[in-house]
Amino acid sequence: MNILIIGDIVGKPGRAILKAMLSKIQRENDISFTIANAENAAGGRGLTQEIKDDLIGMGIDVLTMGNHVWDNKNIFNFIDDEPRLIRPINYPGDCPGQGMHIYKAGFNKNIAVINASGRVYMPALDCPFQTINEVVNDIKDQVDFIIVDFHAEATSEKMALAHYLDGRVTVLVGTHTHIQTADERILPQGTAYITDLGMTGPVDSILGMAKGPIIDKFLNARPARFEVATGPAQMQGVVLQLDEENNKATHIERFSYYLGD
Amino acid sequence: MNILIIGDIVGKPGRAILKAMLSKIQRENDISFTIANAENAAGGRGLTQEIKDDLIGMGIDVLTMGNHVWDNKNIFNFIDDEPRLIRPINYPGDCPGQGMHIYKAGFNKNIAVINASGRVYMPALDCPFQTINEVVNDIKDQVDFIIVDFHAEATSEKMALAHYLDGRVTVLVGTHTHIQTADERILPQGTAYITDLGMTGPVDSILGMAKGPIIDKFLNARPARFEVATGPAQMQGVVLQLDEENNKATHIERFSYYLGD
Amino acid sequence: MNILIIGDIVGKPGRAILKAMLSKIQRENDISFTIANAENAAGGRGLTQEIKDDLIGMGIDVLTMGNHVWDNKNIFNFIDDEPRLIRPINYPGDCPGQGMHIYKAGFNKNIAVINASGRVYMPALDCPFQTINEVVNDIKDQVDFIIVDFHAEATSEKMALAHYLDGRVTVLVGTHTHIQTADERILPQGTAYITDLGMTGPVDSILGMAKGPIIDKFLNARPARFEVATGPAQMQGVVLQLDEENNKATHIERFSYYLGD
Amino acid sequence: MNILIIGDIVGKPGRAILKAMLSKIQRENDISFTIANAENAAGGRGLTQEIKDDLIGMGIDVLTMGNHVWDNKNIFNFIDDEPRLIRPINYPGDCPGQGMHIYKAGFNKNIAVINASGRVYMPALDCPFQTINEVVNDIKDQVDFIIVDFHAEATSEKMALAHYLDGRVTVLVGTHTHIQTADERILPQGTAYITDLGMTGPVDSILGMAKGPIIDKFLNARPARFEVATGPAQMQGVVLQLDEENNKATHIERFSYYLGD
Ligand SMILES: [Fe+2]
Ligand SMILES: [Fe+2]
Ligand SMILES: [Fe+2]
Ligand SMILES: [Fe+2]
Ligand SMILES: [Fe+2]
Ligand SMILES: [Fe+2]
Ligand SMILES: [Fe+2]
Ligand SMILES: [Fe+2]
Repeated sequence: MNILIIGDIVGKPGRAILKAMLSKIQRENDISFTIANAENAAGGRGLTQEIKDDLIGMGIDVLTMGNHVWDNKNIFNFIDDEPRLIRPINYPGDCPGQGMHIYKAGFNKNIAVINASGRVYMPALDCPFQTINEVVNDIKDQVDFIIVDFHAEATSEKMALAHYLDGRVTVLVGTHTHIQTADERILPQGTAYITDLGMTGPVDSILGMAKGPIIDKFLNARPARFEVATGPAQMQGVVLQLDEENNKATHIERFSYYLGD
Repeated sequence: MNILIIGDIVGKPGRAILKAMLSKIQRENDISFTIANAENAAGGRGLTQEIKDDLIGMGIDVLTMGNHVWDNKNIFNFIDDEPRLIRPINYPGDCPGQGMHIYKAGFNKNIAVINASGRVYMPALDCPFQTINEVVNDIKDQVDFIIVDFHAEATSEKMALAHYLDGRVTVLVGTHTHIQTADERILPQGTAYITDLGMTGPVDSILGMAKGPIIDKFLNARPARFEVATGPAQMQGVVLQLDEENNKATHIERFSYYLGD
Repeated sequence: MNILIIGDIVGKPGRAILKAMLSKIQRENDISFTIANAENAAGGRGLTQEIKDDLIGMGIDVLTMGNHVWDNKNIFNFIDDEPRLIRPINYPGDCPGQGMHIYKAGFNKNIAVINASGRVYMPALDCPFQTINEVVNDIKDQVDFIIVDFHAEATSEKMALAHYLDGRVTVLVGTHTHIQTADERILPQGTAYITDLGMTGPVDSILGMAKGPIIDKFLNARPARFEVATGPAQMQGVVLQLDEENNKATHIERFSYYLGD
Repeated sequence: MNILIIGDIVGKPGRAILKAMLSKIQRENDISFTIANAENAAGGRGLTQEIKDDLIGMGIDVLTMGNHVWDNKNIFNFIDDEPRLIRPINYPGDCPGQGMHIYKAGFNKNIAVINASGRVYMPALDCPFQTINEVVNDIKDQVDFIIVDFHAEATSEKMALAHYLDGRVTVLVGTHTHIQTADERILPQGTAYITDLGMTGPVDSILGMAKGPIIDKFLNARPARFEVATGPAQMQGVVLQLDEENNKATHIERFSYYLGD
């Protein structure tokens, strides 16, 4: 069974390249299950019901989130009623939405998808290591595959979590930096890993946003209004082969597609 | 003219793969000039005179540094007398060593190499944008090529600096995260760019260090003794083609070599 | 000559206690010159022209700012035309407004007021130590007194700057933490110092803001809408005696006034 | 019943002023129970068995710690066997030592002492709000008084925790900034509070350490060797009156004693 995982979708250009290319890519790669990070899908900040429905309508099975999950208040209208949407599991206490959900795919396989947020250079949530460890122990006997989207800044935290979970989860992909890394591989105990999936949005940009205001902010340290950039778009992520005999990842491959204006 | 830039060399395994493979790679790629980041060359932290001499003896022309520059006090013995070593230029005030130096290479070309450190999630140095802007304006009429090693954590700061300098420097490569990124390209105004060169050191590691203590620190938040990992090594970086007619970068290509135990 | 320096004014309750008590306090303490930090004067975030005029109309001679200086965009309308308003001097480059201004007070004395922002746990501005050192060297022969409002988080940075400038500035007061410290004193070389002036605003609050949403944010890590609290107000700061014979601070005294509902 | 709580003891000068003055202060204030923060007692960093025994021998009943708890490895030799020593309770997982202990004092009263560390601008531990809430709920029926030493940087986090626990703990004192605050009071629901107790150590210093190297570090951003300062010492903290009839704090009073060379 092949699955597709797509890096942070940024605004309209990110949605446009998906609309143009996703179903063809799914067909060509014989994809049974598609996950995408949608924390920047609505104008670069958060997610709305309309955009969520649009993305799911394109053939995405699960949307994951990140530190921008609450940026658009509209999410509170639907996060509790949408099983195809998961937010970082390590938000403390009684938090709207869910951080893990189990889906069916392939020959009736149970796939758990977990979303978590790092803590290095990021807000103080519950420990992602402890939290994921507990949920993995809880669900491991009921599921065939476990896929983790670890939304984090520091490469050390991403690699540490991957090695900590190596052999206990099927796939761990990083998101958040919006720059695709070239280190996709199967770790020693069998977990498929990449430090960052990259970004699905405008190419000529800084992490999807228009360059000028971001450069200005570095130069003058005053607040600036950041807007999603325009122009040609990229779609980045990985295709994974999962072996349905032994429930292992057998291959991970990066992709980066381009769509001209 | 082809130049080679090598990502952060970590400890003995990093030096060993260079010893084994560097001269062959230089020959095969017809390399005229080699730069390597050496901030982790001595046991993962800093640089000593002996290791500096060893690396230069292998055929590296310039060593750049980063936030670990002062970790090994031995560097104060030689940093002021070694033109082949540069440290982040944006250390404030009267700082030992130099942040930029001009070298000769190819058909008598002047190559300026600048090392700078980011400030996002890193110590508060002088502004890298301002500092590099000034030095580039100072030297631009005396040099043919300008190469920047920007040692920084945040992908936004790296991309912002690259776009800010686009067309004004020949090459800008990122270091520090120890994970190679897959985004090497020529930016719109002609600067060759990659967000991170990656790492030259032990493969089965977390950023070059043994995995156990780093995972433990994430789990228990207590101090741990980090040591360079052992086992097979990787050597990562980029090869650049510089056109000596018009003094532009014409190609940037990532590499990742592997050396078994 | 006695001068009064008032800690961060927060919203309407902060302005109300000033309106009720400032002129009486000035009279009773024979105050010749009054400075107040106004970075939170407009609804807890920034400053507007109307509120600036209101504060100056109450008898405040100079308003200083801090990290919230740009929170209310209205400030861009008047910051370049208002000599009685200063913002942190260490904003880089070409920045609206001014970071230092020289005023007349007492028997025709020249008083320089400098506002600066710390960098520990705060945005990466230019170095406050370097920047203030330069301006102090520039103005020292033209002025009788130099007063610094150092808007910073870390006690170490505040004390380090104070000892660095000790004997070269007349007064250094800290702002930003909104909690008055009990360490007012004359430092060994003669500079009057306090780590934090405290806050002028609602008493039953967390730093001037309503308690509930701030506690909630610590508990659930989700964004919350912070609003200025209501109820009884406090007015905090220091009264300083400056000797006009030898241009030295001779006394520093904390105050904390209370105004019931 | 009166209790004494002493701010961070720094090195030999901190221990010297305690040796000289503690028993007299205890006698004069009729103190039944004494707590002191000892995270900097051994040369400014951590605690050793010898120094722990020395401090307890002086008449301190409980030593609390903070972010420096593990700085001196010697603590691992005794932390599990010393009921009079508590470390931040919100260290995750299986951690040596204890974060809460119940003592006897006064007319056979049970006093729980809890130590916790903040997370704003500090390492990512478990949530102090959640952790303390749970332990308070666990012990509230077995104890008469609950005293919290909250070791934290940000004034917002300290005040938020205090208001969150107001009425459910007897006393909450802040430590860590080493600067005594002037805001001691009884909060609306009855908890006695101060944002920071201050520091017990050398007066002419930056937070207890020699000034020169700290100022240098701010100026040049290079590592420096910090050492405990010398000269006259101060002893800071609070005296609390606890009413043994209704188990409430009735008074909190700051002190700052001085001992010449
Ligand atoms: Fe994102
Ligand atoms: Fe993100
Ligand atoms: Fe490095
Ligand atoms: Fe580094
Ligand atoms: Fe403020
Ligand atoms: Fe502030
Ligand atoms: Fe301390
Ligand atoms: Fe501390």
